[in-house]
Amino acid sequence: MASIWFLPFDKEIKSENGLGIMHAAVILRLPIYSTCGAKGACGKCRVIIEKIEGPISPPSDRERELLGALLEKGFRLACETVLQGSAVVRIPEESRIKRQIILTAGNEHLFSVRLLPDTEKYYLNVETPTIDRPTADRERLLRALEKTYRIKKSRLDPFVLRKLPAALSSNPKGVTLSIWRKTEIVDIVAGQSAGLYGVAADIGTTTVVVYLLDLEKGQEIAVKTATNPQISFGDDVISRISSCQRQAGALETQRAAIVQCLNALVEEASSEVGIDPTRIVEMTAVGNTTMHHLLLGIDPGGLSRTPYPPVLQDSQDVKARDLGLEIGPSAYVHLLPLKAGFVGSDAMAGILATGIHRSKTLSLLIDIGTNGEIVLGNKDRLICCSTAAGPAFEGGHIRWGMRAETGAIEKVKLDPRTLEVKIETIDNHRPVGLCGSGVIAAVAEMIRSGIILSRGNFNKDIDAPRLRDGEQGREFVLAWAEETAIGQDIVLTQKDVSEIQMAKSAIYSGTLLLQEISGFEQIQRILLAGACGNYIDPLDACKIGLFPGGDSARIAGVGNAAGYGACLSLLNRNKRKEAQKVAMTTSYQELAASDRFQDLFISNLFFTSAVDYDEGLRD
Amino acid sequence: MASIWFLPFDKEIKSENGLGIMHAAVILRLPIYSTCGAKGACGKCRVIIEKIEGPISPPSDRERELLGALLEKGFRLACETVLQGSAVVRIPEESRIKRQIILTAGNEHLFSVRLLPDTEKYYLNVETPTIDRPTADRERLLRALEKTYRIKKSRLDPFVLRKLPAALSSNPKGVTLSIWRKTEIVDIVAGQSAGLYGVAADIGTTTVVVYLLDLEKGQEIAVKTATNPQISFGDDVISRISSCQRQAGALETQRAAIVQCLNALVEEASSEVGIDPTRIVEMTAVGNTTMHHLLLGIDPGGLSRTPYPPVLQDSQDVKARDLGLEIGPSAYVHLLPLKAGFVGSDAMAGILATGIHRSKTLSLLIDIGTNGEIVLGNKDRLICCSTAAGPAFEGGHIRWGMRAETGAIEKVKLDPRTLEVKIETIDNHRPVGLCGSGVIAAVAEMIRSGIILSRGNFNKDIDAPRLRDGEQGREFVLAWAEETAIGQDIVLTQKDVSEIQMAKSAIYSGTLLLQEISGFEQIQRILLAGACGNYIDPLDACKIGLFPGGDSARIAGVGNAAGYGACLSLLNRNKRKEAQKVAMTTSYQELAASDRFQDLFISNLFFTSAVDYDEGLRD
Repeated sequence: MASIWFLPFDKEIKSENGLGIMHAAVILRLPIYSTCGAKGACGKCRVIIEKIEGPISPPSDRERELLGALLEKGFRLACETVLQGSAVVRIPEESRIKRQIILTAGNEHLFSVRLLPDTEKYYLNVETPTIDRPTADRERLLRALEKTYRIKKSRLDPFVLRKLPAALSSNPKGVTLSIWRKTEIVDIVAGQSAGLYGVAADIGTTTVVVYLLDLEKGQEIAVKTATNPQISFGDDVISRISSCQRQAGALETQRAAIVQCLNALVEEASSEVGIDPTRIVEMTAVGNTTMHHLLLGIDPGGLSRTPYPPVLQDSQDVKARDLGLEIGPSAYVHLLPLKAGFVGSDAMAGILATGIHRSKTLSLLIDIGTNGEIVLGNKDRLICCSTAAGPAFEGGHIRWGMRAETGAIEKVKLDPRTLEVKIETIDNHRPVGLCGSGVIAAVAEMIRSGIILSRGNFNKDIDAPRLRDGEQGREFVLAWAEETAIGQDIVLTQKDVSEIQMAKSAIYSGTLLLQEISGFEQIQRILLAGACGNYIDPLDACKIGLFPGGDSARIAGVGNAAGYGACLSLLNRNKRKEAQKVAMTTSYQELAASDRFQDLFISNLFFTSAVDYDEGLRD
Repeated sequence: MASIWFLPFDKEIKSENGLGIMHAAVILRLPIYSTCGAKGACGKCRVIIEKIEGPISPPSDRERELLGALLEKGFRLACETVLQGSAVVRIPEESRIKRQIILTAGNEHLFSVRLLPDTEKYYLNVETPTIDRPTADRERLLRALEKTYRIKKSRLDPFVLRKLPAALSSNPKGVTLSIWRKTEIVDIVAGQSAGLYGVAADIGTTTVVVYLLDLEKGQEIAVKTATNPQISFGDDVISRISSCQRQAGALETQRAAIVQCLNALVEEASSEVGIDPTRIVEMTAVGNTTMHHLLLGIDPGGLSRTPYPPVLQDSQDVKARDLGLEIGPSAYVHLLPLKAGFVGSDAMAGILATGIHRSKTLSLLIDIGTNGEIVLGNKDRLICCSTAAGPAFEGGHIRWGMRAETGAIEKVKLDPRTLEVKIETIDNHRPVGLCGSGVIAAVAEMIRSGIILSRGNFNKDIDAPRLRDGEQGREFVLAWAEETAIGQDIVLTQKDVSEIQMAKSAIYSGTLLLQEISGFEQIQRILLAGACGNYIDPLDACKIGLFPGGDSARIAGVGNAAGYGACLSLLNRNKRKEAQKVAMTTSYQELAASDRFQDLFISNLFFTSAVDYDEGLRD
């Protein structure tokens, strides 16, 4: 007869036989840490024996090695220690799995979430069959699961059935199950298995990001990004959609391309931290409606015809294998809900991550991507729209544009007197090109220096070595060839500025329209999401006129809010219901049908903060 | 305002607008027949207008053509006729889908079942989206489904989602759904679609049978058989199991082989009746435990080690695509339950088909295949066992053995005086070999003629041209080379007789043991299942001593009862629950552990009905 009382949890377990401390803690579902699968290798499961009556196993060689002098202070490894009598055992702070995750972006407190993944681990012992009761493996497993955890009638995925006989016949006895929603066994491993992993994917029109998360510790353990390979079918969603209409097989090719891209990113992330991708038990994915449909292999053609209905809106749970995703063979992918044809699950995830739907503060959330989704509102009401901002803020359609990678110019300062340039690049590498925040900074500084005038044209009255005629008209040299990593001058062209004018007017005008419709006037907080959202200088954004109300509101970059939302819904299952509710209650404004938006768009193309001295008018 | 009162169903439908008769009948789910998809082409949907008030569409050209003089008697085609007022419409007997199927085998009334498939068709209209309510396709479909049929929150398989936009945007409006268990949409087709198909598969160790059924009419429309390609891994289940232990990849090769075989049979059956295999909405499958596990890709290794537990027992519903089966991309396969390591779902299906679990009659059901499964009992209690009868009764291990195909000798008569032979072959073709019933008949006749003695040896005292020494010892010529299609003498060898002795003793002894254990003495009915079960002459079976009690019991061949059981569970979903209950309540006797069985097996190797004059003893 043995019994253990665990502190600080005040939970007790009794047994007819001896009790391993780790085994006991696992059965009680106490959050005890182990990265080696309770094999005495990692030393993370150390506990303190505060009281003991009866025999206890002597310290093993591994414990002597890993604990050293701590042994004398009562420390032991939970996985190596077996008790015969009764004991009080404390699981100290450092050996506990953290169940509360707080993410921040810049100074903005982004979110705090309880660790409550949809797929959880259960360790159990399954009895062996006898000649009198030669019960099948599956039925014995289900009986043990019901007896140990009161989980009844779990489904077993057919690919788990294949792993069943080997897992059950291994030695020592005991298996670790991964169970989805307490209803379906999606993995089985012999023994006490370490690790429970999930991936969250943010599929942007231009950039794809994959986050690999440890679902036991609630930690991001690897992040990988790539350019969306569908880009060969067009820069924006409209060209991707129309390619599906024009070319037979384009839908399938684009589907296969994004799947391959996700698989490669998952593989990269997994190998970085040394885990097998097939051990990933769950995935969440967000993207705009077109990306979402293409991933599912659904023709997005309806999105090109009024009234632009998506093929589906609600969140979906699909087997990863049915989409061709190479994670756990039985794992599910949770696709967050969509709002409309051009407001996708990325926008819903952004709301989830920034929590604007739970806040009293009137917030403006702008996702600065190829599709500029705008959400305005607070906990009482949210209204959203989508603008075809184009890829300029992601470096697309910009002469020297690039993604926010090593060598990208992300900050630009101009001396207004000498027009000399000071740049900062990512990783302090020699410059390779300009990422979104660099483009915005360059334009803002050129406005401040009077180089760019209100209509967007370059001031012909300024004569400086950096300002010159290039192949595509006037251009401004940001870095001379000898300073760069590419041996060529990096410039900002007149055409680049036009791209930025259209992109900023789309977002500015969309926001104005939402304000007009909702009556929401005084925006208190502006949140810039998107790959470069974190790096945009708020003053630069105001200077180019990216959004109204920038003078009085708090402005903060919130990074890849869509990606964070995908992570959130991976870490906590309740966030999925929350996202579904947000999608149902947020109202949507269609801009394509709005004459008022067209008017606003035209009249907001100018830089109102720039010098109103128009060369063009003089000619 | 229109209304139709349907006879003989006494069901009424009303509408604000005009009513098409077919449309109205479909909405009311009346069993009206149509093979063309309500396109006015097949003429099967004729109805009688018994009373009419208000306008009715004039007879179309198609109606004139297909109905002719019947038009004057009030007949119309339901799919071509639209009413504006109110009418009484009779759906005559010949236009009704039959919902009751009765199968018989020989004179034995096998089963009668109500047509109630697990997957059913639903026709509905889905509203179009508007700019004010650009609701997604999926959500509009689900709303229409709930409104029309009160089916709530159906799941949509991801492969159905892919078909959704094209189906919904076709003209005329309206889609036909195939819904599994009223919970999951597994197919969608534009318009009113004809046909609902399913396949039932019986996977034998030696022979694979696929039945293609029309689930609207409850008819078998094609049957295809093939040799199980796993035969290259061994004739019997034990060799198939042990190959998985010995050779890496043997499990996967055997899995792929049976899947390919099933796909080929489904393709053959479908093309025979001109349907696309992807239109098959459901499948059921039965087989012995090893065949079942191999189809699922599960290592059957546990079946070779005491206590021989299977990996799973309960019935399973698995997506066909997850097994590699090429039917509807979203279709389910229902695998019937297993009883034990060596009593599989084929035996459970056999019980289901013969109904011995619902009958007062004490029945003995013997499946004469490579594994001889024996079930004894009645509605109060069933007991079963499995004997390794070997493939002799299916023509395996027999010098000139073959499957029951064209040219197989199936009946044999010997003139006891002249020893001249009269044979009958399948399709009256020139003989090619001997199938199971032919082997049994030959042995029985040779016993009657005194050629085969009680110990199984050939009587050396008989001198006849047909009795001679061959390569493998003594042999008896059943057909001379010039009579056959193969230009060689077809013989029965001494070794063939030994094979039959072992096979029959296994079944005889197994039955005796079940009788001893259960106390069931007076067997009232003996049912012979298996490919050749129908063709075995009961007197021949008694002569060779295939089972005890043959002198007083009714004996009947019930054909491929396992296959019929698979068909039954495809035609009526309630049969699936019944099979599961049978599997739970039938008791199982393990013979491998039984010394008593070994004793019985040895002492029943002799032919007790043969002349007890033993040459062997004289030598």
